[in-house]
Amino acid sequence: MADSFLDKNTPIPLYYQLKEILREKIETGELKPGDLLPSERELSEKYKISRPTIRQALKELVNEGLLYREKGRGTFVSEPKINYGFIQKLTTFYDDMVEKGYIMRTKVLEKDIKLVTKVIAKKLNIEENEKVIYISRIRYIENEPIVSVVNHIPYKLCPDLINEDLEDKSLYRILAEKYELVAYKARVTLEPIVASEYDSELLNIEEGAPIHLMQNITYTKENIIMDYFESHFRGDKGKVMVELYK
Amino acid sequence: MADSFLDKNTPIPLYYQLKEILREKIETGELKPGDLLPSERELSEKYKISRPTIRQALKELVNEGLLYREKGRGTFVSEPKINYGFIQKLTTFYDDMVEKGYIMRTKVLEKDIKLVTKVIAKKLNIEENEKVIYISRIRYIENEPIVSVVNHIPYKLCPDLINEDLEDKSLYRILAEKYELVAYKARVTLEPIVASEYDSELLNIEEGAPIHLMQNITYTKENIIMDYFESHFRGDKGKVMVELYK
Repeated sequence: MADSFLDKNTPIPLYYQLKEILREKIETGELKPGDLLPSERELSEKYKISRPTIRQALKELVNEGLLYREKGRGTFVSEPKINYGFIQKLTTFYDDMVEKGYIMRTKVLEKDIKLVTKVIAKKLNIEENEKVIYISRIRYIENEPIVSVVNHIPYKLCPDLINEDLEDKSLYRILAEKYELVAYKARVTLEPIVASEYDSELLNIEEGAPIHLMQNITYTKENIIMDYFESHFRGDKGKVMVELYK
Repeated sequence: MADSFLDKNTPIPLYYQLKEILREKIETGELKPGDLLPSERELSEKYKISRPTIRQALKELVNEGLLYREKGRGTFVSEPKINYGFIQKLTTFYDDMVEKGYIMRTKVLEKDIKLVTKVIAKKLNIEENEKVIYISRIRYIENEPIVSVVNHIPYKLCPDLINEDLEDKSLYRILAEKYELVAYKARVTLEPIVASEYDSELLNIEEGAPIHLMQNITYTKENIIMDYFESHFRGDKGKVMVELYK
């Protein structure tokens, strides 16, 4: 491939142009996962730009997860992102990923009966003095922590759920098979946030790394709200897709 | 409202519990936009936790855009986020926001005929030596920069577009009315990223702030790809919603 040149006649900063050139090389496969990048000095000579400019471009590509650094060895190209899949259809994340051939694990951090908070009561459309089953989990794909999920399920819908073993299982499959609570519709809100100290600990990422916050209200066919969950997906590891029609 | 207490018998860190309590107060309206928060010392006494713990909670709520600081005055509650709306249906962002009553402005940063890059050629399903009309814009809602958009439109579909005035206009309406290119279907990818130096300049936010990266391929009813665009939405200002069915 003939190399793209930096263009000084556009409002786009030089560092950002270099970033896009490197992104292009990664996306077209000219640079492959595991490849070592040229040094800052070499890049600086090749593109005729200063080393701080090179550094800014590399730093941001590392933040985005396209590159990673190894101390004393240099900067390398990362594995491509996982496609978390279309969020078009309501499928369970667990089944979806298993179907794609990923090895999934689920660790339960906490499972408890709690009094609902005001905000969650509103989302679940229940009274403020009602109880919920609170379940906090981490999901691993190929042994990497990818998403933390906190579910709030009205206690009255399935009081026995609290005794269920949820380790490495699909919660929604248990709800369907044992409690006849079959997910039919979901209202999802997506928001980008940055990793909190707690996220960074749970998901093994840097504080400030990009996170996909998904808030989800799940309905049965009878329009009963069976769950409100919030999940924090690592942004460096995946993206979601939607197909829209007029 | 009886105050929620911090719970020491859960794996959830204390700072994170405090964060959720404050979030609850903001979401229920107990704390309103513009309200001044109690000082760190007062919060520390009230919740019986250390000031660094308080500080971490407040810092993260500021990062998320729920609170803001004014130098020498204290920490205040922000205006609620704009709902960017359902991304269920393909509507133009411009028309959508105008319909909601927001005052919209669009500034064109660059409009140019460029040779397509390899990656974009693939997305547009055109040859690598073809030309595209490259349009870079910033959109303002209520005079605040909210989103930057870069469109890549195959030149052959509408060579005259380059002469069109796009300031404060809906690009897709012009494409429909003058060039018979009517958006019918879109494939959208959503990814959380953190603001680059360039984003921070364009959108008037801090470097590292959360951003919604939306990549969009737009098709006509005849299945012609009429546009590939990337937009960077400020995460502190809004979220998107989807409704899913089984």
